[in-house]
Amino acid sequence: MAELLVVGSVALDSVETPFGKVREVLGGSATYFSYSASFFTQVRLVATVGEDFPEPHRRLLEDRGVDLHGLQTSKGKTFRWVGQYGYDLNEVKTLDTQLNVLAEFRPTLGEALRRSPFLFLANIDPQLQLDVLRQMKEPPRLVALDTMNFWIQGKPEALRRVLAKVDVITINDGEARQLASEPNLIRAARAIASMGPRTVVVKRGEYGALMLADDTFFFVPAYPLDSVYDPTGAGDTFAGGFMGYLAAQDRIDGPAMRRAVVYGSVMASFTVEDFSLTRLTRLKPADIADRYAAFHDLIRLEP
Amino acid sequence: MAELLVVGSVALDSVETPFGKVREVLGGSATYFSYSASFFTQVRLVATVGEDFPEPHRRLLEDRGVDLHGLQTSKGKTFRWVGQYGYDLNEVKTLDTQLNVLAEFRPTLGEALRRSPFLFLANIDPQLQLDVLRQMKEPPRLVALDTMNFWIQGKPEALRRVLAKVDVITINDGEARQLASEPNLIRAARAIASMGPRTVVVKRGEYGALMLADDTFFFVPAYPLDSVYDPTGAGDTFAGGFMGYLAAQDRIDGPAMRRAVVYGSVMASFTVEDFSLTRLTRLKPADIADRYAAFHDLIRLEP
Repeated sequence: MAELLVVGSVALDSVETPFGKVREVLGGSATYFSYSASFFTQVRLVATVGEDFPEPHRRLLEDRGVDLHGLQTSKGKTFRWVGQYGYDLNEVKTLDTQLNVLAEFRPTLGEALRRSPFLFLANIDPQLQLDVLRQMKEPPRLVALDTMNFWIQGKPEALRRVLAKVDVITINDGEARQLASEPNLIRAARAIASMGPRTVVVKRGEYGALMLADDTFFFVPAYPLDSVYDPTGAGDTFAGGFMGYLAAQDRIDGPAMRRAVVYGSVMASFTVEDFSLTRLTRLKPADIADRYAAFHDLIRLEP
Repeated sequence: MAELLVVGSVALDSVETPFGKVREVLGGSATYFSYSASFFTQVRLVATVGEDFPEPHRRLLEDRGVDLHGLQTSKGKTFRWVGQYGYDLNEVKTLDTQLNVLAEFRPTLGEALRRSPFLFLANIDPQLQLDVLRQMKEPPRLVALDTMNFWIQGKPEALRRVLAKVDVITINDGEARQLASEPNLIRAARAIASMGPRTVVVKRGEYGALMLADDTFFFVPAYPLDSVYDPTGAGDTFAGGFMGYLAAQDRIDGPAMRRAVVYGSVMASFTVEDFSLTRLTRLKPADIADRYAAFHDLIRLEP
C-alpha cells in the first residue's frame, strides 16, 4: 500500500438541484477526493481553509484517517461556491464563487510529503499545480491532474506546462472538447494525450467514463441509478477511487488502471445519491465491494 | 440458423450532415435492418415501394441474399424522407416526409412467412405492427419492435397494445423517456419493460446502448470513431445485427442477448462511417469479427 497526496480545495458549497437544496455544506475538490480515497489507502491532504471552517468538518475527514497536517488555516473566510443544477444534471450553473483564503493559497509541502509516490493535483490554478510538482523531491510513481474550463480559458500556457509533466488527466467531456478545440470526443482524448498525459480519463456524467491509455480505449457506464440527487463532487470522488485503488495496490499497469476506473465509478455512484458527502459518510467497505461486482456485471460480455 | 422476417419501410432518403449531403439514396428501416442482418442469417423483407424504385437498389439487397418476395411495388412513388443533422449527430431535424405508397401500405404475409421464428417489426404504424402479429400462424420465438416519437404521440393506444405482445423493444433514449413520461432513463427503461417487452434495448447514439432484461442492465459503448459521417439508419442497422445474430444462433438466452447487443453495436458503428448503406456494401465478415473483438476489448475488465 502506497501513500497518496492530494493538493486542492476545501470549500463550503451551497447547492440547489431539482431534488433539494443545501447551504454551506462541506465540499471542495480535495475534500471529495480524500474522503473517497480514504477507503483504499493513506491519504494526506494539502489545502487551505479560513478561520470560519467548522470543526465537525475537520473531524469528519480525520475520522476517515485522512492526514490533515497539510490543511492550513489562514486568516479570512473559507472558499465558498454556489451552484445550481436543472433536470439535466450534466449541466451546472455557477451562481457565485468567493475564493476568500483560496485566493492567496500557496501550497507548501512538508518534508515527508515531498516523497509521496502517488500525487493528485486537484482542480486549482495550474501554476500552483506546477509549483507542487517542483517541490517533489523524487518523481512520484504516478501523478494525476484535474482541471476545469476556468483554467483552460484563463491559464492555457501554465496548464500546457503542467500537462506535459503528468501521467494522468481526469477531465469532464465538455472540458476535454474545449481543451483540445475538437468536438469529436475520441479525437479530443487523443489530442490531450499528445499534450503529455499518457492516460486520459474523460468523465461523462450519466454516460459514465472512458479511459484512453496507450492508444487503447476502455469504457465504463455510470451505475444505473433510479435517482441522482446531486452530482457535485462526483468527478473528485471518481478521482479519489481511481487514485486510491492504484495507490492501495501500488500498481499502475493496464489491468490495474481499468479496475481503477471502475472503482472511481463505484465511488462517484455513491456520492451522487445524496448531497455533499452525506452518502459517503454512511458507506461501508462491503458496499464498495458489492457495487464493484455490480459494475462488473453491467459490462460483462461473457458469463 | 433460423429465418428472420422484417416488416418496415424502404425509402429514398435525402440527408445533410456537417460532413456532406446526399440526395434520394437508399434508406428505410427495413432496408438498413435487412442489409445488416443479412451478414448473419436468411432475411425475408416485407415492405412497399413505388414504381420509381431504382432497380439497382433492389439488386443491392438481392445480392446480399435478402428475400424480396414480400417487397410489393405499388402504384405511385416510393416513400421519401429528408433530414438534416448539425454537429450534435444525436439530434436530427426532419425537413420533409412524403409517405407516398407507404400511406396505403397494408403488409400481407405469404404463407411461408407466417411461421417465421424471428420477427422484427420495424418502425411503422403500430396498427400495422399489430396486424402483422395477427397474421402469424405460430407465435414466433422472438418478436422485436422499434418505434418513434411520431407514433408515441400519435397512436399511443395501438402502440400500447402491440407493446404488450412483443418480447423486445429497441428504442432511442429520447423516445424511451417520452414513452415512459420519465426523464430518468433507468426508470424509463423499467417502466417500458412493465408495458410488456421483457427486454428493453435503449439506443443512445454516441453513448452506445443499454439493455434491460430480467431487471438486469447491460451497457455497451459506441465504438470510438474519429469521424461519424451520417447516423441515419444506425438504429435499424443495430437492430439488424442484434436480431440477425440471435436468429443465426437460434438462441435467446441472456449471454446470447448480450452478445447480440454487441453485434448490433458493431454493425451500427460501420453504418455511421458513411452515407446510406455505402460502408455496409464494402463490409467483409472478417471486419465484423475484428470489430466484435475490438468491442470486447473496450469493455473487458479482466485481462
